[in-house]
Amino acid sequence: MPAITSFDIEDLRFPTSLDEAGSDAMNKDGDYSAAYCTLRTDDGQVGYGLTFTIGRGNDIVCSAVEQVASRLVGWTTDELFSAAGMGRMWDYLLADSQLRWIGPEKGVIHIATAAVVNAAWDMYARHEKKPLWQLVADFTPEEFVAATTFRYITDAITPDEALALLKEKEAGKKERLAKLKAEGYPAYTTSVGWFGYSDEKVAKLTREAISQGFNHFKMKVGGGVENDKRRLALIRSIIDDPKECAGRPEPSPGSLEGKQAGPTGSCLMIDSNQVWDVQEAVDYVKQLAEARPWFIEEPTAPDDILGHAEIRKQLKPYNIGVDVPPPTSFTFAATGEHGHNRMLFKQLLAAEAIDVCQIDSCRLAGINEILAVLLMAAKKGVPVCPHAGGVGLTNYVVHLSIIDYLCVSGTKERNVLEYVSHLHEHFEHPPTINARGFYNVPLDPNEGYSIGMHDESKATYVYPHGKYWSTAGQAKVRANATS
Amino acid sequence: MPAITSFDIEDLRFPTSLDEAGSDAMNKDGDYSAAYCTLRTDDGQVGYGLTFTIGRGNDIVCSAVEQVASRLVGWTTDELFSAAGMGRMWDYLLADSQLRWIGPEKGVIHIATAAVVNAAWDMYARHEKKPLWQLVADFTPEEFVAATTFRYITDAITPDEALALLKEKEAGKKERLAKLKAEGYPAYTTSVGWFGYSDEKVAKLTREAISQGFNHFKMKVGGGVENDKRRLALIRSIIDDPKECAGRPEPSPGSLEGKQAGPTGSCLMIDSNQVWDVQEAVDYVKQLAEARPWFIEEPTAPDDILGHAEIRKQLKPYNIGVDVPPPTSFTFAATGEHGHNRMLFKQLLAAEAIDVCQIDSCRLAGINEILAVLLMAAKKGVPVCPHAGGVGLTNYVVHLSIIDYLCVSGTKERNVLEYVSHLHEHFEHPPTINARGFYNVPLDPNEGYSIGMHDESKATYVYPHGKYWSTAGQAKVRANATS
Repeated sequence: MPAITSFDIEDLRFPTSLDEAGSDAMNKDGDYSAAYCTLRTDDGQVGYGLTFTIGRGNDIVCSAVEQVASRLVGWTTDELFSAAGMGRMWDYLLADSQLRWIGPEKGVIHIATAAVVNAAWDMYARHEKKPLWQLVADFTPEEFVAATTFRYITDAITPDEALALLKEKEAGKKERLAKLKAEGYPAYTTSVGWFGYSDEKVAKLTREAISQGFNHFKMKVGGGVENDKRRLALIRSIIDDPKECAGRPEPSPGSLEGKQAGPTGSCLMIDSNQVWDVQEAVDYVKQLAEARPWFIEEPTAPDDILGHAEIRKQLKPYNIGVDVPPPTSFTFAATGEHGHNRMLFKQLLAAEAIDVCQIDSCRLAGINEILAVLLMAAKKGVPVCPHAGGVGLTNYVVHLSIIDYLCVSGTKERNVLEYVSHLHEHFEHPPTINARGFYNVPLDPNEGYSIGMHDESKATYVYPHGKYWSTAGQAKVRANATS
Repeated sequence: MPAITSFDIEDLRFPTSLDEAGSDAMNKDGDYSAAYCTLRTDDGQVGYGLTFTIGRGNDIVCSAVEQVASRLVGWTTDELFSAAGMGRMWDYLLADSQLRWIGPEKGVIHIATAAVVNAAWDMYARHEKKPLWQLVADFTPEEFVAATTFRYITDAITPDEALALLKEKEAGKKERLAKLKAEGYPAYTTSVGWFGYSDEKVAKLTREAISQGFNHFKMKVGGGVENDKRRLALIRSIIDDPKECAGRPEPSPGSLEGKQAGPTGSCLMIDSNQVWDVQEAVDYVKQLAEARPWFIEEPTAPDDILGHAEIRKQLKPYNIGVDVPPPTSFTFAATGEHGHNRMLFKQLLAAEAIDVCQIDSCRLAGINEILAVLLMAAKKGVPVCPHAGGVGLTNYVVHLSIIDYLCVSGTKERNVLEYVSHLHEHFEHPPTINARGFYNVPLDPNEGYSIGMHDESKATYVYPHGKYWSTAGQAKVRANATS
C-alpha cells in the first residue's frame, strides 16, 4: 500500500525588497519567502505545500515544517485519501503536546503545520485528478464536516449546525458553478498602492489596473495623514473619472451590489498593517474619510478582538454623509491575514468586530481549519475575502473562495478576492484573471492546490545557496534591508 | 566602551516524562526543556536567560533565540544599562518586521525573544549588583514607565496613568519590603496532584506539602469526572482534616483573607490545561463543585477571551451554597500561562474573563512586557499569580511577584505564587521557601534574575550530545514518549 515515505523542505526567498513591491507601513522591506514542503510517497506521488514569510526567520519556519512533516511519514494513502482521513490527519498533527507547547496553535508551529497540511491536501487532490476546490466541493456535507476541525469552536458552531448549513447550500450548487465558470470570481487589486511606490508609479499602475478590468483598489496607508490623503486623492482622481474608466468592462450584473462607490463604480480600500493603537486608529482613519474607503484593514494588533470592535463602533458614524451616488458605505473593518487560528476568528465574529473576514491560507493551519472559519463566517453572514499576495497566496486563495461560494456561503455578492501580481512566473499553475478583472476558475485536473513551482525557480531562489543568493543578489538585498 | 560581542545558545532537555512529574490532561509526557541564552560582553560580563518548552521543538526555539540574540550584538552596556535603555532594546528587538511576521508577537519568536530580553535584564541586574526585583523596585516611577512597553495597550492604560499609579504606590514601599523580608511571599504547591500520579503518591505528597507549611494545593483535572472527583476527595480528606494539619504553621495574619476554605484554612485549585471546549468546560466543572475549588485554571483554549468570560459567567452561581465556614468562593477563572502577549491580557481584563491573572515569565517577551501586564491588572484590581514550574520558572517568578507587590499592586492579600519543586538542583540560585511555605526574597547581589545554571547540569542535559542524552537516557525517554 503506498505511503508517505519522504519529504523535502526548501527555504525559498525572493528579493522583493529591491523594488518595494509588497511594502506597507509595518513591513517596508520584505523579501517574500516560502517554506516549501514536498511530500512524497513510495509510488511516486507528490504533494506540494508552502507557508509564506517575508524573509528572515524563514529558516526557523522550515525547521518547524520538517518536524511536522516527519510526523506524516508512514501514513498510507488509504489512511489519508478521504475527507475523514484528512480530518484525522489534522487532529494528529495538532496533537503533539510537545510541539503544541511552542504555539499553541499560533505562530511558527502553526504556519509550518499549514505547509504540511496543504501539501497533503494537494497530494490528495492530484490523486483524485481534481483541482483542490473541486475535491472539496464534491464532498457530501457529511464528508465536509468530517474534514473540518471543530475543537474549541463548538460554542460558535456545532458539527450538526454545520451539516444543516451545508445541506441547505447543496441546492443551487450546480448553477453557481456554471455562473462561476462563466463570470469568474470578483477580485480587487492591491498592486497599485504599495507603501514605497512613487505617485507616478501609483498613477500608472492604477490606470493599468483599470485597463485590466479592476474596479476595486487597495492602498497602503499609515505613512502620515497628509501623505496618505494625497495618495488617496490621486487614486480617486483616476478611478472616479468616467474618461479614465471608459474602456473598462462592466462588472457582472449584481455581483458587486451594495458597495460600488463613486460615479464609475470604483471602490477603494485602505490597509495600515497594524501600525496603530486603538484610539490612534480611530483618530487617524477619520481624517481619511473623504476618500470614501470601503474598509480599513488591520488598523491595530491582529489579536485585538475588542480593540477592533471598538474601532468599528467609533468609525460607524462616518458611514454617512458621503454624497456620491450610489451611496458608499465607509465601514470598518477588515482583518484576518494575521488571524492566527479559528479561535480568533470565532471571537472576531462573536464580538461583531469585523465586516469582512480576511482569512489567510497559511496563517491558519491549512484547509481543515479554513473550512471551520468559512462555516462560522457564513453562519454570521460575514463575507470572506481572503488575504492574497506574498508568494503563492493568490494561487491558494482562489480555491478557498470558490469553496466558500459553492458550498458554504453560497454568495459572492459582497465578496472580492485580493489579487496581487507578484511572482506568478515561478508557479506551474499561476492564477489568471479574465478581461473583467475576475479570477478564472482553476480547471487543470493535475494542478491540485496550484502551488507546484518550477524547478528552475527553486534552484535560483533557494536560500542561501541558490543561484541568485550565492551571487551579487544577496549583497544587494542585504544592503537594501539594512538601509 | 564594553559591548555585547557574543552569545551562546544551549538546547537543554530534562527527562521529566520518565516519572510523570509535570503531567496534566493535555501534556502527558513533557520533557521539561530550556532554550538557554548566555549574552557576553567583551569585558567579561554575562547575562543568562531561558525560555521554557516541554521537549520536541526546543531546537526550533533555539534557532529563533539565535536570530533575536544576534540583533543585540554591538549594543554597548551604556546603551543598555538604564530603564530607558532596556525600553529601547525591547522596542528594537520587536521591530524587525521580517521576524515579526512569523509571530507577530506570539509563539516561537515571542518566547525566543523572552530568553534574550531576560538575559539582558539579568546582565543589567548583575552589573548593578542587585537581584532583578530590586533593580526594578529601585526605579523611579518615570524609569519604570520608560522600561515598560505600551504599544497596542494605550486604550487600557496610558503611560501617564501608569505613572500616577506607580507614584501612588511609592508610599509604603519600604514597609512592604520589610514585611516581605519577614514573611516571604505566599505560595501554593502544584507538586501534589500531577495528572499521572497514583492516589498513594498524591496522598503522600499532600501530607509532605502540609508539613512544608503549604495551605494552597492545585490538582490537575480533565481525566474523567469520576476520576477527578476521587482524587479531589482524597486531597480534601487530608487538607480539611485538623489532625493532618495540626503541625502546620499559621498563615501570616491577613495575608490569605477571603479565600481560605474549609475547617483548616486549606484551599484547593484545579487546572485542566485547555482540554475542553467552552460549554464542555462549564458542564464538567459544575460536577466538581463539591470539592470547593477556588479557581479553575485554563478550562479552554488560552486565546479564547470571550469563551473564558462565558465560562466565568456560567460558573458564577456555583459560588454559593458551599456551607463550609469560612465561606469559600468558587470563582472562575484563572488563565495566562499560555497568554501569548499583553494584548491578550488587555482583553481578558477588559472582558472580565478572569479573576486571577497568571502571567508567564517566558511566554510574554520578558520583563518589559510583563511590567505592562502588571500595570493593567493593578488598574483593574485583578491579582497576579504567575505561572511557575517547568524548568526555571520558579526562579523567575518570585522576582515578578515581588515587583508587583512593592511597586504596582501594593498588595499580596489575594495573591499566591505557584511553587513547583522540580529541577531546582540545576540552578546556582534556586528559589527557597520558608517554614510557612512562603517564597523567600532572593537577596544575593550576584544572582540577577536567578537563572544561572550549573555548568555540570548544562553539560549533562544539553541535547542531543550531552552526557545524559548520548547514553541510555535518550532511548528510555523516547520509548516513554511514544508509548
